[in-house]
Amino acid sequence: MNHLKTPLFDQLVLHSEKQPISFHVPGHKNGSIFPQKGQDYFHSLLKLDMTELTGLDDLHSPEGIIFEAEALLAELYRTIKSFFLVNGSTAGNLAMILATLNKDDHVLVQRNSHKSIMNGIRLANAQPVYLYPEYVQGPMVASGVSLETVRTAIKKYPQAKALILTYPNYYGMVYNLEEIIKLAHEHQIPVLIDEAHGVHFISGEPFPQSALTLGADVVVQSAHKTLPAMTMGAFLHYNSSLVSIEKMRYYLQVLQSSSPSYPIMASLDLARSYLATFDKQDINALTREIEVFRDELNSIEGLSVSPVGNGDPLKMIVQSSEQMTGFDLQKRFEMQGVFQELADPLNVLFVLPLLKEGMPFPFKPTVQRIKRAVEAKVPFQKIAGIKDPSTLSKIITPAVTFEEMLIMKTTFVPLLEAKGRICAETIIPYPPGIPLFLPGEKIQATEINHLMNLLRQGAKVQGGERVANQEICVFL
Amino acid sequence: MNHLKTPLFDQLVLHSEKQPISFHVPGHKNGSIFPQKGQDYFHSLLKLDMTELTGLDDLHSPEGIIFEAEALLAELYRTIKSFFLVNGSTAGNLAMILATLNKDDHVLVQRNSHKSIMNGIRLANAQPVYLYPEYVQGPMVASGVSLETVRTAIKKYPQAKALILTYPNYYGMVYNLEEIIKLAHEHQIPVLIDEAHGVHFISGEPFPQSALTLGADVVVQSAHKTLPAMTMGAFLHYNSSLVSIEKMRYYLQVLQSSSPSYPIMASLDLARSYLATFDKQDINALTREIEVFRDELNSIEGLSVSPVGNGDPLKMIVQSSEQMTGFDLQKRFEMQGVFQELADPLNVLFVLPLLKEGMPFPFKPTVQRIKRAVEAKVPFQKIAGIKDPSTLSKIITPAVTFEEMLIMKTTFVPLLEAKGRICAETIIPYPPGIPLFLPGEKIQATEINHLMNLLRQGAKVQGGERVANQEICVFL
Repeated sequence: MNHLKTPLFDQLVLHSEKQPISFHVPGHKNGSIFPQKGQDYFHSLLKLDMTELTGLDDLHSPEGIIFEAEALLAELYRTIKSFFLVNGSTAGNLAMILATLNKDDHVLVQRNSHKSIMNGIRLANAQPVYLYPEYVQGPMVASGVSLETVRTAIKKYPQAKALILTYPNYYGMVYNLEEIIKLAHEHQIPVLIDEAHGVHFISGEPFPQSALTLGADVVVQSAHKTLPAMTMGAFLHYNSSLVSIEKMRYYLQVLQSSSPSYPIMASLDLARSYLATFDKQDINALTREIEVFRDELNSIEGLSVSPVGNGDPLKMIVQSSEQMTGFDLQKRFEMQGVFQELADPLNVLFVLPLLKEGMPFPFKPTVQRIKRAVEAKVPFQKIAGIKDPSTLSKIITPAVTFEEMLIMKTTFVPLLEAKGRICAETIIPYPPGIPLFLPGEKIQATEINHLMNLLRQGAKVQGGERVANQEICVFL
Repeated sequence: MNHLKTPLFDQLVLHSEKQPISFHVPGHKNGSIFPQKGQDYFHSLLKLDMTELTGLDDLHSPEGIIFEAEALLAELYRTIKSFFLVNGSTAGNLAMILATLNKDDHVLVQRNSHKSIMNGIRLANAQPVYLYPEYVQGPMVASGVSLETVRTAIKKYPQAKALILTYPNYYGMVYNLEEIIKLAHEHQIPVLIDEAHGVHFISGEPFPQSALTLGADVVVQSAHKTLPAMTMGAFLHYNSSLVSIEKMRYYLQVLQSSSPSYPIMASLDLARSYLATFDKQDINALTREIEVFRDELNSIEGLSVSPVGNGDPLKMIVQSSEQMTGFDLQKRFEMQGVFQELADPLNVLFVLPLLKEGMPFPFKPTVQRIKRAVEAKVPFQKIAGIKDPSTLSKIITPAVTFEEMLIMKTTFVPLLEAKGRICAETIIPYPPGIPLFLPGEKIQATEINHLMNLLRQGAKVQGGERVANQEICVFL
């Protein structure tokens, strides 16, 4: 296998170098027709923004350069078949669910999954059984589900048609996935993994093991999150005898543009090559850089960086040691031009670069900026008491089904009076994009408190038509 | 209204100029981490490949620069609300169908619709009533449906919940949409239009009228097809009192990446501004350029360019006057570095640039290249007899429903023996991406002939697992 090969990117460059004349879409005609204002940024890449011309293959029926590029991807991840995605992990998550589940099938699904997982289950008209995750005490964030929870769930729903988990979580934390997959497979239940944040795990230690190595049936990865790929570029890996690959192909072409972006696909080809050539020396150099950076951040008074543990070393959780909320910390960092992945009530999350040896990254000036940010004498709100949101029961099914919801009437009630009502809308703090409220669920006091807390601190929220007025939509 | 405004693009540039440090996704960190090989092409645009940072808004819950950019779009098209799409017209077509149709609803749908329309109807589990189009004799291509066909269909299915049409067709041809919309609205049936190829029609004469001007409820446009937007950039226009906008929003966030591409969105912002400032002078200049080009092509012996008629002047249908197939003509053009949108048994289709006054485009050298292509003494197959594929009945429902299909068994039979069987797969010549065979339909002799003809001439086909072996999947 030649890791340096990039058949898709190379062929696009070859086509472009021939100075072809375009009487085809897109309308910018190889970049020659474009507003002057945008030329500096767009000009070079538009030369590769092609369509399904002779020699450039077809994502939805690949037999040339896209087929080759996907084969190199499958070789790297050792899968039966791997697919390039151009509509993000969203399309991959929807497709793997629709390919696996039929109407009314029971599905065991981690409750803190990304909204695309929940949307997929609803599109499939399947019946979700929510598995609640464990909580990690320091940063107070939800991680994965326990083996025990899965065991109990399978005992209760042995007829379940899939187990859908997220691995790692947004913060790079992992859990005992290997045993969980073994258990599911003993019951012929396929395991579908949203590995959006773990595309680089295949590089080996010190990264956690990839869900593919651990035996998962289908794995979806956001290539753009940690690899050098354009946003919306993602991978779907198929490695199963329990899921139909024909159905997978069908839904992938249903859910992705029939004019997929060649720049995004070419960036996936380059990103795969980048990862495949990421070697031991690179890992050592990167590990050193991260250690130095962490130590320097930890030496700043008022800041505390969590130890990596056995999670992803590319994720760094930064807290204020002076009870400043993550949101306030984020604002201060941003004032100094340092932008991070997300803030939550306690933490700020950094996603570090997957640097190769010799590649420069401005860690040093960043430490200076962060120091200035922390030292700024700006008054701030202290963290409000954050309660452990763990639920007593780890396995909960919605109070009403999707079909019942279709004919039920709804109304808005004040959030503070919503406890015990059946929720009729989705409310999603974004990032991370994990639904706090889902239609059909009985509303709990802990969730109300959590949302009130987020709103008070200025968190961004998707859905929730009147959430700004502290109202929530419930079923009558 | 200031047409020159591009709030989304401008803010991205502002953010980039601050030289921010990225501890967020995407993994290329503002373009700083990227394979050397791809730097020349990708570097400049990756500076704008951002994520939902403070100040950069959120496509799925817009209230800042994306909200403003979409408002400018709505102003230009005079709609209630217009949306940016990043997963092509595919996402828009699926969303408008899922937002309008419930399970088992009847829907009147043009039979030569794009596959995304058919996929949407199947996802919605609605019941399609296919309306067959008229044929245009010269180029022998399907155009739109007649008012008479729609009138008969509504009489037969007055309970239909939507009428879904394509306007213009792939070749830029239009039809009497205004009267059809009026008729549908008299019966409270919303009209959903796939206007993938008509995003520029709003500029006025000599372009045909936009489906929005003619009163359509929802219109989806591939901005990237004729405007200077990146591939996968599209618009959805909502202008209805018959369709729910909440459902539309819901499905748009379901079907599009939760990490939408900022370069694609910024290109939509720039493209809208480009179109909004396309003035009378530009139209005159463009019209002159096209006339000269057409005359010069027509003066080449062996070539014939169809008159534009009342269709889109940006589309040009080129035929051989020596009975050469479109596919053969295409190959010859490509040998000379001239690439076109598509070929079919009779024609080659050019999509011309939406040039502004003073913008150069290599029409002159192209004429020389095309001349060389036509003069090349390469032997070719003469066009086989092409029959008028018009069906006797213009209104046909599938022989079996989607639900019945789920439990029916299938087998493969030779294509030439498939007449009268019920088709169990989708076979799509691509481009144009319009399904020739659809599951549930009784297979007709004209369709078999057409497919055999396409295969013989080397047309590209999506779907059809064993179509290369001249076999087709049918229900037992």
